[in-house]
Amino acid sequence: MKVGILGYGNLGRGVEYAVEKNDDMELVGVFTRRDPGSVSVRSGAKTYHVDDLPNMKDDIDVLIICGGSATDLPEMTPKYAGMFNVIDSFDTHARIPEHFSNVDEAAKKAGKIGIISCGWDPGMFSLNRLYSMSVLPGGKDYTFWGKGVSQGHSDAIRRIEGVKDARQYTVPVPAALDAVRSGQNPELTTRQKHTRECFVVAEDGADQEAIRQAIVTMPNYFADYDTTVTFISEEEMKRDHSGLPHGGSVIYTGETGEGNKHVIEYKLNLDSNPEFTGSVLAAYARAAYRMNKNGESGARTVFDIAPVMISPLSGDEIRAHYL
Amino acid sequence: MKVGILGYGNLGRGVEYAVEKNDDMELVGVFTRRDPGSVSVRSGAKTYHVDDLPNMKDDIDVLIICGGSATDLPEMTPKYAGMFNVIDSFDTHARIPEHFSNVDEAAKKAGKIGIISCGWDPGMFSLNRLYSMSVLPGGKDYTFWGKGVSQGHSDAIRRIEGVKDARQYTVPVPAALDAVRSGQNPELTTRQKHTRECFVVAEDGADQEAIRQAIVTMPNYFADYDTTVTFISEEEMKRDHSGLPHGGSVIYTGETGEGNKHVIEYKLNLDSNPEFTGSVLAAYARAAYRMNKNGESGARTVFDIAPVMISPLSGDEIRAHYL
Repeated sequence: MKVGILGYGNLGRGVEYAVEKNDDMELVGVFTRRDPGSVSVRSGAKTYHVDDLPNMKDDIDVLIICGGSATDLPEMTPKYAGMFNVIDSFDTHARIPEHFSNVDEAAKKAGKIGIISCGWDPGMFSLNRLYSMSVLPGGKDYTFWGKGVSQGHSDAIRRIEGVKDARQYTVPVPAALDAVRSGQNPELTTRQKHTRECFVVAEDGADQEAIRQAIVTMPNYFADYDTTVTFISEEEMKRDHSGLPHGGSVIYTGETGEGNKHVIEYKLNLDSNPEFTGSVLAAYARAAYRMNKNGESGARTVFDIAPVMISPLSGDEIRAHYL
Repeated sequence: MKVGILGYGNLGRGVEYAVEKNDDMELVGVFTRRDPGSVSVRSGAKTYHVDDLPNMKDDIDVLIICGGSATDLPEMTPKYAGMFNVIDSFDTHARIPEHFSNVDEAAKKAGKIGIISCGWDPGMFSLNRLYSMSVLPGGKDYTFWGKGVSQGHSDAIRRIEGVKDARQYTVPVPAALDAVRSGQNPELTTRQKHTRECFVVAEDGADQEAIRQAIVTMPNYFADYDTTVTFISEEEMKRDHSGLPHGGSVIYTGETGEGNKHVIEYKLNLDSNPEFTGSVLAAYARAAYRMNKNGESGARTVFDIAPVMISPLSGDEIRAHYL
């Protein structure tokens, strides 16, 4: 199975590692909007300009698109679904129906498969919401994120005047987690579910109190949360905050019979958010390839894909060893 | 969707509750090998003798078979897959390939779907082993059961002379759970993973020390575990041990990139094992019905079934609200 990677940021690098771990996959090349000569690819795979893609339709079985959800993917995924089997990690929840429909149209026209919104949330978390809800209808689902780095929130802090660098951790509130796990079905406000911990490197002479105020009052990002701001040095930032850990829990509570309670929890504890997301993309790229070989076309999500399709093993092997 | 239940023990009662919770399902009747007049069905659904089944092929969309894995299901599931879409919770892991093949042959011949080994283990636990293994190849999976009642182990104690009643709890060892969750990838013996707690009502004048010895030395069931035996009264048994709670965790640890660790845990905490298993069976009965309506036939497991097939919601609704 020949794989192309479009975009070589953190996620593209994560996919590159994942492709190496899967014996049935081969990395054809990394595609970039930059000058290909300027991009140094860790594995030594070939680099190409994105404009070379239309000439490589026969060389790539699945193109894994590693772009941003805000502007890249809404344009890129439908475009390349017209040429290749594609997969992306589109995560703007409100725009998923529109994105699905655009990819579906392009993929059907080209006779290709386009898998959207794949990763861990949306992705593995979504699967667990759906499985639980289907098994225990009428229950309640909770999603907690963290402890982990939110890149969007870190970027928002970096845009404040006087800020040199910043890292924001989303942290679930332990008391809220405990209440949900105990099956109490609490109603929780935004503030009760998560806190936000910010580590900031300020520019020399910057007004730290003004920066702190700008963060904690920022609408949408911080105003609805209990937010702590800690100023650190550049050295401390590099030493203590260079990783991109993340994770969280989907917890579902439901009842059966005469008041019997059930709690289902799916929990991720990830050292590297982009490498785990890249691993999910690689596994589902396998499904895109297989479904297309079976003659299917159009857009798909993790919900539409039988688990056996993402495994390198045969049905016989899986039933014998994993059932 | 018209559902029949074959067998009215704890699991059959669990399925009965589950069918009531799903608006798109209707319980046609309960089928039994006993005298139907002697079986009192909680919901008031009709009872039939099992021999009536061949005359009701047009009245039932899916037959949910609630028999035992030792002798009932190996015979029943292939037999009724020749007449109906069927589903069972066959859990003798070593015999799954043989059972799958028997059901596959019968179901294909009849143009029906037969889903086997559905529940939580095998079932939801199996799904989580497969998803994790596919996303993070080369990792390690651990399954812990409990705290919960093992009916097989409780029955084994009841067969000892002088025992009036017994309840056995399987309990994961906290230190083993902690070591696995921390990503240490320990090698664990049977004894290191679980302990067994037994509560026994002895007959008047029975030799309690002899009973204790018979339990803790019993091969396969107890000899390889640290087992505690507590003698209690009939009243205490009824008051404190009448439920059938169970649960456990599937924990998978894997690596990506340059030593980044990831821990995936799926955890169930169930007040009622048979009611939860019954709920899983009902959800997958929906998939059996839909797949057969789509023209498919043959044996299936949870691995072969796209998640969307078990949900009462449409693809549009699921994408908009659960992705």
